[in-house]
Formats: sequence, C-alpha cells, structure tokens
Amino acid sequence: MEAAASRASLSRLSLNQITTKRWSVREAAEGCLRAGIPYVGLWRDKVAETGLEESARLVREAGLEVSSLLRGGMFPAATGAERMARLDDNRRAVDEAVALGTDVLVLVCGAAPDRDLDAARGMVEEGVERLVPYAAEAGVKLGIEPFHPSLMTERSVIVTLAQALDIAERFDPGRVGVAIDVYHVWWDPNLYPQIARAAGRILGFHVNDWLVPTYDPLLGRGMMGDGAIEIRRIREAVDAAGYAGPIEVEILNPKIWEKHGDEILEQIKERYAAHV
Amino acid sequence: MEAAASRASLSRLSLNQITTKRWSVREAAEGCLRAGIPYVGLWRDKVAETGLEESARLVREAGLEVSSLLRGGMFPAATGAERMARLDDNRRAVDEAVALGTDVLVLVCGAAPDRDLDAARGMVEEGVERLVPYAAEAGVKLGIEPFHPSLMTERSVIVTLAQALDIAERFDPGRVGVAIDVYHVWWDPNLYPQIARAAGRILGFHVNDWLVPTYDPLLGRGMMGDGAIEIRRIREAVDAAGYAGPIEVEILNPKIWEKHGDEILEQIKERYAAHV
Repeated sequence: MEAAASRASLSRLSLNQITTKRWSVREAAEGCLRAGIPYVGLWRDKVAETGLEESARLVREAGLEVSSLLRGGMFPAATGAERMARLDDNRRAVDEAVALGTDVLVLVCGAAPDRDLDAARGMVEEGVERLVPYAAEAGVKLGIEPFHPSLMTERSVIVTLAQALDIAERFDPGRVGVAIDVYHVWWDPNLYPQIARAAGRILGFHVNDWLVPTYDPLLGRGMMGDGAIEIRRIREAVDAAGYAGPIEVEILNPKIWEKHGDEILEQIKERYAAHV
Repeated sequence: MEAAASRASLSRLSLNQITTKRWSVREAAEGCLRAGIPYVGLWRDKVAETGLEESARLVREAGLEVSSLLRGGMFPAATGAERMARLDDNRRAVDEAVALGTDVLVLVCGAAPDRDLDAARGMVEEGVERLVPYAAEAGVKLGIEPFHPSLMTERSVIVTLAQALDIAERFDPGRVGVAIDVYHVWWDPNLYPQIARAAGRILGFHVNDWLVPTYDPLLGRGMMGDGAIEIRRIREAVDAAGYAGPIEVEILNPKIWEKHGDEILEQIKERYAAHV
C-alpha cells in the first residue's frame, strides 16, 4: 500500500535533466528508473553527447516518458542570415523531439541583439510564426517559456506569462502554448489571472525555488522549500487551469550539481511531496 | 555661450547621493557646486551622520535644491507592533524631508516577511494609507518607487509601475505619486502605456543602466551608456507624460564608489548629455 501511494504521489514527477547536470542521458534514465520517477525532461546538449538514437533507446528501455525537450528559441539576432540559421536549428530541435518521443519543445525565446526591445520582441514573434508550420507537421507543440526579467539580457525578452500568451494565442492551442516555471513567474502581480487565462495552453510546469538572498539570477535557483516561492499555490492554480501533465523539477545550481545524482533525486522526491 | 549651454543642459540634473557613497553630505554639496549640478537627492543615513540641521544648511549654502529624500517605506513586517514602528519611522522621514526643504519622500515599499505576497502587498497599501495624512499635513508627497522583480525578497513587493499606480491612484495626485527608476522598470512590456498613465503623478525620475552580464541585482548598476537600457526613450516618454522635474543619477556600484567623487561627477555630466 505504501509503495502504491508513493508511486501515485510521484505520478506527475519529471526530472529535468539540468538538475543532475553531471549525469549523462544514460545515468539520468537509470537514476529515474531506480528512484521511481516516471518522466524526464531532456536537454539537447546532453542528447547530442550521447547521440540522438541512443538517447531515445536508453529512455525508452528505462520505461520513462519524455516530458519535454529543451530548448528551442533564441530567435532574435542582428542579421537576417543569423536569424535564418537559428530557425534551422529550431527545426532540428523539432526533429529531435520527435525522435525522443516527446511532443513538447520548450522555447527560450532569446535576448535582444542590441538595446531595441521592441525589435527583438518582433523577431521572437516572427521566429515562432515561421517555426509553427514545421512543428505542427511533425506533431510537436511549442511551449513558450516566459523568463524572469533579471535574465532579459541573457535569455529572453519574453518576461511575463501575459507576453507569452499574447504570442501563443495567435495560434491554435494544439500548436503553441506556454511552459510555466515558478522561478520565472512567481513575482508577477498578474500571475494568477494569467494562469487562468492560460487554460488549454499549458504545455509544461517547472518547479524549483527563489533563494534569499539572491546570488545569481541564472545559477542561483534553489530546491523546493529552500526559498520564497508559494510553490503549492502556483501548482494548484496551474491544476485549476486544467493542466494535469508532468511537473518538471528544473534547478540550475552548482552547489546542487556537486552532489551525487541519486542523492539529488531522493531530495527531489521528499521536497516534491512536501512543497509541490 | 558654451558655459550657458552647458548650464542649460544640466538644469534638471540631480546627484543622488548614493552614487558618491564615500562622500558625506558636505562633500556631496560642495562637489555639486563645483560641478554645476543644481540638485541633490539625499539619503537619510548620510543625513543622520552629518546631522539634520547641518545637512540642510550645507545644501542651502551650496545653492542646491533637494530633489528628494530617500527613503521611506519598508512597510511589511511580521507583527503589528513592528509595522507600527515602521510607520513611526516613516513619519520621522517626512519631518526630515521638510527640514531638508524637499517635498518628495521616495518610498521603497519593502519585502514580504514570509512567502505570502498578497499579505505583504496589503501591508504596503495599509502603510501608505496610514502615512498619507501625516505627509499631506507636512506638504510632503509620497513617491512610490516600483523595484525590479529580482529585488522582491530584499526591497519591495511592488515590482511594476502598474502596481505602484494602482496604489497611488487611490489618493489625490498632490499627495501620492510614483518615482520611476529606469533600472527597475526597463524590462516591463507595459512600460510605455504605464508611463503615460502616470501623467500628473510622476514625482521623480532616476537614471543609471543595466549591465550585461548582470552580476548583482542590488549593487551591479551601471553608468548611463554602459548597459542595455533605452534610457533616452524612457526619458522622452516621462517628459511626454508631463514630467519636467529633476532627473536623479542613482548608481549603486562598488566599482564606481571606489573612484574620486569629482571624477564620478564629471562622468555623470558627460554620460547624461550623451544618453539621457
């Protein structure tokens, strides 16, 4: 009974691979199998190290489902040629998602190549628009992930859920949606109305925590329960918007990466039960 | 002629005292006089070091106007007694503003004492509401300064201009307005509509820059022109909303603080002319 309850409580849990950065795809797949974690979110650089077909085989043989592939996006660039090269790379990401057996490609939309934010936002919209037909043909949905405003110059000019939805709503809900990461959205005074607005378009939900004091916007993310975010309240709002899919634990933090992967997974399960 | 043109171009320039952190009130006043900078924004801790009356005298004798006093706010706290103590401290800040000859007290609203952001936001609204009658009686306006979302756990749960205006608009425009700092608001996809909405309530405008890469949300602010912010575009929007008051240069950055104050002021004048 206890084992069944434990399995039920983990039924939506996904290890986003960056959380165990030192592990290869093989190690992550085997680790999830040992820990009873049913989903894994894969990163393209790790998949490339192992090889695409080998990665797909390893994950399949471990009985895991791939919750998403990270990441597409990075649309804005100074020249048209560079933007075209990035679009090509996004198409390859779509192909990789198909090969890995996931129908969700998460988009980190990209920073501005100069000070002109409006132009960069326009390049994001154009990039999504150009990618959609290819992704739709392949049966892959695009999940626009709004990023924390502190990462605007490094990662994304799309910094609110409202912005992400403004783009997504130009397309069919079966083609473009959003990925919601608590770290990136928790500060937003419009968060809960925008989560409700996202109903039918939520393609992914990522959990971690905002550490206090904040020491690095990119790599200072915390384990659930170690920071300031009302994680459960956000998860309940995402559920209330109809999302019942996997919940990825995605933590970028060198202090966590130093630990053994199995140890990280045990802590994830404990904190997931207590705080998500 | 050149000197006259230079004086005209500096007519709105204010040295926010934190930018020359190593200077006392006396040194800042004398430095501004030497540099031809007509305004100074004072900090309460520096004023306390020099003494309130002495600070007022030094600034007056240098022929400077005080653009604002920083800072009031910090309303949320875990207990009612502590919130009351903070309200008392805010009333003292109002008295100090009067003594220093400025009618603007800038409010840094404060962080949440726990994970409950809604409760903390409520404490901010309550704090402003309780402070208004005292400030109005003294002829001091309260300028709510929205802070960058990366500083939510350290400085303020009010992180957008829209939030600040939602509170300010509950009061007469002659009593409560907003202070707009480019660093805190530049990322906001709703920035320009909200600046337009702020017409008649803009009580201060602060300039600096967002450095890339970002190395510290609190102390990593840059000199105008060294970072990613479209400063002139924001200044023009603020002007278009009818603000014609002082423009404070406010930079928290230990690398700048190391320099001699006169050198900082010369760079400010040059960068102000080129980028603001």
